[in-house]
Amino acid sequence: MKVKAALAYQAGKPLTIEMVDLGNPQAGEVLIEIKASGVCHTDAYTLSGKDPEGLFPAILGHEGAGIVVEVGKDVKSLQVGDRVIPLYTPECRQCEYCLSRKTNLCQAIRVTQGKGVMPDGTSRFSIDGEKIHHYMGTSTFANYTVLPEIAVAKIREDAPFDKVCYIGCGVTTGIGAVINTAKVEAGANVVVFGLGGIGLNVVQAARMVGANMIIGVDINPGRKALAEKFGMTHFVNPQEIDGDIVSYLVDLTKGGADYSFECIGNVNVMRQALECCHKGWGVSVIIGVAAGGEEIRTRPFQLVTGRVWKGSAFGGARGRTDVPKIVDWYMDGKINIDDLITHVMPIEKINDAFDLMHKGESIRSVVTFD
Amino acid sequence: MKVKAALAYQAGKPLTIEMVDLGNPQAGEVLIEIKASGVCHTDAYTLSGKDPEGLFPAILGHEGAGIVVEVGKDVKSLQVGDRVIPLYTPECRQCEYCLSRKTNLCQAIRVTQGKGVMPDGTSRFSIDGEKIHHYMGTSTFANYTVLPEIAVAKIREDAPFDKVCYIGCGVTTGIGAVINTAKVEAGANVVVFGLGGIGLNVVQAARMVGANMIIGVDINPGRKALAEKFGMTHFVNPQEIDGDIVSYLVDLTKGGADYSFECIGNVNVMRQALECCHKGWGVSVIIGVAAGGEEIRTRPFQLVTGRVWKGSAFGGARGRTDVPKIVDWYMDGKINIDDLITHVMPIEKINDAFDLMHKGESIRSVVTFD
Repeated sequence: MKVKAALAYQAGKPLTIEMVDLGNPQAGEVLIEIKASGVCHTDAYTLSGKDPEGLFPAILGHEGAGIVVEVGKDVKSLQVGDRVIPLYTPECRQCEYCLSRKTNLCQAIRVTQGKGVMPDGTSRFSIDGEKIHHYMGTSTFANYTVLPEIAVAKIREDAPFDKVCYIGCGVTTGIGAVINTAKVEAGANVVVFGLGGIGLNVVQAARMVGANMIIGVDINPGRKALAEKFGMTHFVNPQEIDGDIVSYLVDLTKGGADYSFECIGNVNVMRQALECCHKGWGVSVIIGVAAGGEEIRTRPFQLVTGRVWKGSAFGGARGRTDVPKIVDWYMDGKINIDDLITHVMPIEKINDAFDLMHKGESIRSVVTFD
Repeated sequence: MKVKAALAYQAGKPLTIEMVDLGNPQAGEVLIEIKASGVCHTDAYTLSGKDPEGLFPAILGHEGAGIVVEVGKDVKSLQVGDRVIPLYTPECRQCEYCLSRKTNLCQAIRVTQGKGVMPDGTSRFSIDGEKIHHYMGTSTFANYTVLPEIAVAKIREDAPFDKVCYIGCGVTTGIGAVINTAKVEAGANVVVFGLGGIGLNVVQAARMVGANMIIGVDINPGRKALAEKFGMTHFVNPQEIDGDIVSYLVDLTKGGADYSFECIGNVNVMRQALECCHKGWGVSVIIGVAAGGEEIRTRPFQLVTGRVWKGSAFGGARGRTDVPKIVDWYMDGKINIDDLITHVMPIEKINDAFDLMHKGESIRSVVTFD
């Protein structure tokens, strides 16, 4: 079939809207009509050409929501008409990782996903007979896409696509880091570095679980009001304090953060996030993605005296199990997504979404189809 | 009273056996007759002058066992005749740290302990009227010493001093790192870097809790036989393998260690220990103490993909609560200490113990008094 896609033909160039060919879903695969898709920093990172694993031409996009319109052979858990969120981290429930109970990093289709193809090694997308790569196993910048059944979360019927698409990446990443990775408990003091989309979701999750101090750290004073709306209790602009940010935060928390989150991708901030943690028990979670080759560092004494350094990918969430729950939380008003989606535009305007992101003028832009 | 001590008069010089003056135990303090004391790398580190916090003159030693011979005013939990192990990590059961349930790093007397004095700010030791510093709050290289009640673990009456003194540091550090810090579970694969005293205790604790593979890594092939006796299942000499030790260990464990332990104090090995851990859930515990100013480093991707980096001090053990249990385990034959104590000598020969350590000829030397 012919589908409308925003095609990344080569690195560093704007996307172009094209009609591309999409093959039928094969065994274990489903065809999804994408209704809305968030535009994430990770898409921009790959499009920029800096992602060493980036492949072109590709259809980017990994934060979508839509409807199942066709199921391939042997598909058991989905049927036509189901509302769904595509998962760049699948959940096969069969592999060593899924069965470990210790991680969400299902490895069932990792190798082919990393090569930009479906599990059978081929691509469903092409244009004029030329292969187009899938991206993160999802390729949501198209009005139709094909996914393996294990990479699709079925959600409730009344969830609005142009909001819950954000749960496909940013919302779950931030909220999951708090509840799955750090397991923040009521009364804890939390420091959040970076008040973009991820950081704001960390803030609201910390509020949801009953954190005490929720300190936001950002050099952009414009983020203060929005973060407060999401539950931030204290705002710290590193450029407006005297002295070292780590000492400042240790003083402010009377000993250090019980939990800190790095939501930027800056290795120097990752160190600050660890070192502002409380001696004896502070846990620092890296969420941001650093540039290739960059390294974190600290004195081992920081760990020997009780701090823990960990990371979080997709919020430690199992996609098929946890994503529908987060959709429920949104529908129940436990979490706020509406105020994070600052721009909505048709797919034809997708390059504007990247521009807004690069200028820091959006929290999240969502593109819609028709 | 006059007591016999091995005095560290200045950094870098051998200890000298002296009769020094010891004041009476004050309120909340007890006088202990030390019967035996292990000689640890930490004593050697401070004696060398490389410890930036080292103070001289001092009576070193922090791995002792003895008998309470006098109790000061207000002492409630100890009485004359009790067999005890001095604790360089106290357990006041009152401070924020003790009450957190998250750490063993009681801070009740940290400041004065770091200054080489008792909690009231004065020293009990002197020679010819000159103040001698306490060391790690314990100063067990003397036949009598004074400690705060909160820094003394009462143990069973039938425990042999010249064995259980080792529980005052090395045994608890290694065993506790496995059971308290890492919480290794049955069936786990474990990699232990460094098969000295700490590493061998990590090995036997891993065996005790039912670990599957217990891989020891050491450049000294002479440690293989002893480590096997303690439960090591695989020995790896980094100098005898082809290629990278991290890849080698990931292959050997079919994906990486569930838990790894650095028992050396080398920041490069700490990195290897982290990176040989299993994607998704591997936990690496730093036990070794690196030289001042040295830093650990890795790519943040290692943590974002699920590895956890933490550290352990005194095995995460609460001294008064957990040390008596470890003494029981020794007495019940659950752990082996006898084979780790390779040399026993009178206090007068203590410099020989340091020589044996520096030559790598001992696992643990114990000095005894009379």
